[in-house]
Amino acid sequence: METLKLGIAGLGRAFSLMLPTFLADARVQLVGACDPRARARAQFEADFSAPAFDDIEALARMPEVEAIYIASPHQFHAAHARIAARHGKHVLVEKPMALSLAECDDMIDACRDANVHLIVGHCHSFDTPYLRTRELIASGAYGDVRMIQALNYTDYLFRPRRPEELKTEEGGGAVFSQAAHQVDIVRLLAGSRATRVRAAVGNWDAARPTEGAYSAMLWFENGAFATLAYNGYAHFDSDEWTGWIGEMGQTRSADEYGNARRKLSHVASKEEEAAMKAAGTYGGDAYAPPSPTKADARRHQHFGPVIVSCERGALRPLPDGIVVYGDERRERIELEAPAVPRAEVIDELIAAVHGDIAPLHDGVWARGTLEICLAMLRSGAEQRDVLIGG
Amino acid sequence: METLKLGIAGLGRAFSLMLPTFLADARVQLVGACDPRARARAQFEADFSAPAFDDIEALARMPEVEAIYIASPHQFHAAHARIAARHGKHVLVEKPMALSLAECDDMIDACRDANVHLIVGHCHSFDTPYLRTRELIASGAYGDVRMIQALNYTDYLFRPRRPEELKTEEGGGAVFSQAAHQVDIVRLLAGSRATRVRAAVGNWDAARPTEGAYSAMLWFENGAFATLAYNGYAHFDSDEWTGWIGEMGQTRSADEYGNARRKLSHVASKEEEAAMKAAGTYGGDAYAPPSPTKADARRHQHFGPVIVSCERGALRPLPDGIVVYGDERRERIELEAPAVPRAEVIDELIAAVHGDIAPLHDGVWARGTLEICLAMLRSGAEQRDVLIGG
Ligand SMILES: NC(=O)c1ccc[n+]([C@@H]2O[C@H](COP(=O)([O-])OP(=O)(O)OC[C@H]3O[C@@H](n4cnc5c(N)ncnc54)[C@H](O)[C@@H]3O)[C@@H](O)[C@H]2O)c1
Ligand SMILES: NC(=O)c1ccc[n+]([C@@H]2O[C@H](COP(=O)([O-])OP(=O)(O)OC[C@H]3O[C@@H](n4cnc5c(N)ncnc54)[C@H](O)[C@@H]3O)[C@@H](O)[C@H]2O)c1
Repeated sequence: METLKLGIAGLGRAFSLMLPTFLADARVQLVGACDPRARARAQFEADFSAPAFDDIEALARMPEVEAIYIASPHQFHAAHARIAARHGKHVLVEKPMALSLAECDDMIDACRDANVHLIVGHCHSFDTPYLRTRELIASGAYGDVRMIQALNYTDYLFRPRRPEELKTEEGGGAVFSQAAHQVDIVRLLAGSRATRVRAAVGNWDAARPTEGAYSAMLWFENGAFATLAYNGYAHFDSDEWTGWIGEMGQTRSADEYGNARRKLSHVASKEEEAAMKAAGTYGGDAYAPPSPTKADARRHQHFGPVIVSCERGALRPLPDGIVVYGDERRERIELEAPAVPRAEVIDELIAAVHGDIAPLHDGVWARGTLEICLAMLRSGAEQRDVLIGG
Repeated sequence: METLKLGIAGLGRAFSLMLPTFLADARVQLVGACDPRARARAQFEADFSAPAFDDIEALARMPEVEAIYIASPHQFHAAHARIAARHGKHVLVEKPMALSLAECDDMIDACRDANVHLIVGHCHSFDTPYLRTRELIASGAYGDVRMIQALNYTDYLFRPRRPEELKTEEGGGAVFSQAAHQVDIVRLLAGSRATRVRAAVGNWDAARPTEGAYSAMLWFENGAFATLAYNGYAHFDSDEWTGWIGEMGQTRSADEYGNARRKLSHVASKEEEAAMKAAGTYGGDAYAPPSPTKADARRHQHFGPVIVSCERGALRPLPDGIVVYGDERRERIELEAPAVPRAEVIDELIAAVHGDIAPLHDGVWARGTLEICLAMLRSGAEQRDVLIGG
């Protein structure tokens, strides 16, 4: 079996969410990390008997590191990718790829020049139900994609945040963080280049003054159009329409209602809130290490209900199957429970690093998603269609 | 008790759907009708011991008729309303109000000049769950409306049709027939004037070449925005998200899948299809008279999932209740089962005719909905925002 020697830049929430993958996937070996938080470094060194630095340069210099998973805050993605590439390391960088298209271009160039792969993820467009739906569409069995509807109602805005996560001009808000998933999924399923965007954004809570919601329409070169809606104000929860299976594939409980707002209501300042966020991630006081989940209870992750209407049928990816609504019959394709959550990210990374197989979620692809997210913000502000890639 | 003496213009499907109301609501007395179909007239005369004419003029001349329910095809609504008004009859006209704004203006003027009320319905915006949700919003308890999402996936396009129902230029398709409901509901809940529309329409079946689907965004003067999606291609069915309660409040069965397409597949021509439609309505061979439904099993009607996100909570009207997603708690307001389906239409009609109370669903209101529907078609064709009432 091929193992991949991975370095980690940023040991926060994103890392905590990937850790079950890294622990369960025998192909991955964590060989180093960096993070300004001393407690996270200490925890990493204890858990993995590997060095943790306060700076990415030192990590990138480690000869054994083959690839770096960049899970630092958005605003560092571009610089960190450049540093990794300069040291000849392949890059797996969290969504959103960066904050501007210029940064994306930089990252793409840097990785191309260094002859390393650039993959943007985890993103929920890696989730097997979406990838399998894409294959079903590509099979041609249902004809062309005509209309896509994606929606997601969550408590996004009331999860504890760093201050910059609540400032749009610094990459905060649901368009940068959540549309990065939803737009990526919709593009993947549309199977065609997006040509225009019309959107409205919602920024409705004076105490958390960034986008907590959006609605958007996308048009694609193949004639398909899509409707996207996201609302993170912790009211209606669309997991109700996914059998109360949560974003991480977990079983949701009805008594969770209001928890996010309630927890946050005890926080008195931005600093306290940031500390609360850090405390809940790797190395923090309130951090709960991943417990091995029973494989049979495990479902795929998801990002809210998605319906793809094709000429001769509709497809609906779910955490444990895909419902196919044909002209004559409704069928359900069962999906095997994942042995390792998010293994799809590792599959794509190892295929690129060891097999030199061009990744689906490469820099050019992810730049396209950021372009649409930026166009959504612009469309909302300027009240008009924004053309893509024009 | 005040009874209302009602004449019926058009004894087809719309009438068949209102008949349970007319039979169960002791306030309504059917005193005459008109329809070119002889069998429908014979059935009406037998059922109600009242005359049925082949022409609306004769019906409108009946002195005992107080109001006429115009349930003829779209293209006759304007002329029929004018005739009714000329004879001093109040008008209840089916949705869509008419095919053009000029026709709407005519109808409004004619009814105003004749000093009769003009109500447009049945429309699902009469359904108690939406009206009660509107009241909850108006109470101010949840703050301003911010975002509305409405969606509906049905078998609309595969129900048997008259030829003109499949020609957009003659008022066919989902925008004229189905957005008439959905836009009306969304406007009512937004509680503010719509200012702009962006839409995409889907016309994807060469054998049924009219809109079978659409997506739209609406913006309102109060800053709220809405996302609407409709798909009538008989694949995914959104009644799944309404507890498998159908549009008419009925319990749906899982074995219905594919029925609409299957039935239609036996039809060889447009004429056969129109005959099939007529056969299923009042007086037709395949017509099933309304069976008295057990009141306790009855739920309100609906037009697909609707979520209204307000500043301090979201509201979700359902056929048997309204779920209120507050900042702290999720609650369910139970709605009493309706004793008479669509009694809300009769309430509004009698209040207008006997109490001279201005109806909510009057001509000016319904004109506003048609304006948006026409703007949706235009936005789809011209690929841009269309301003409303500008
Ligand atoms: N795919 C997902 O499911 C998912 C989930 C959460 C976050 N994310 C993404 O991950 C990224 C990080 O977000 P987060 O929520 O984990 O934030 P976080 O604050 O929890 O974690 C960021 C970590 O990076 C560290 N850090 C800060 N500056 C650094 C630097 N210069 N070098 C190295 N490390 C540094 C912080 O100390 C912290 O431990 C964001 O881009 C976010 O969009 C993705
Ligand atoms: N609110 C609802 O739930 C609902 C449901 C169905 C239809 N409708 C509306 O009702 C109207 C009729 O549609 P439908 O589906 O019932 O069609 P339909 O063809 O079933 O019924 C129309 C009836 O009008 C008769 N008719 C035709 N020309 C006439 C004339 N000049 N004068 C009098 N009667 C005439 C026809 O013979 C037929 O019996 C449409 O505007 C439609 O949008 C509303």
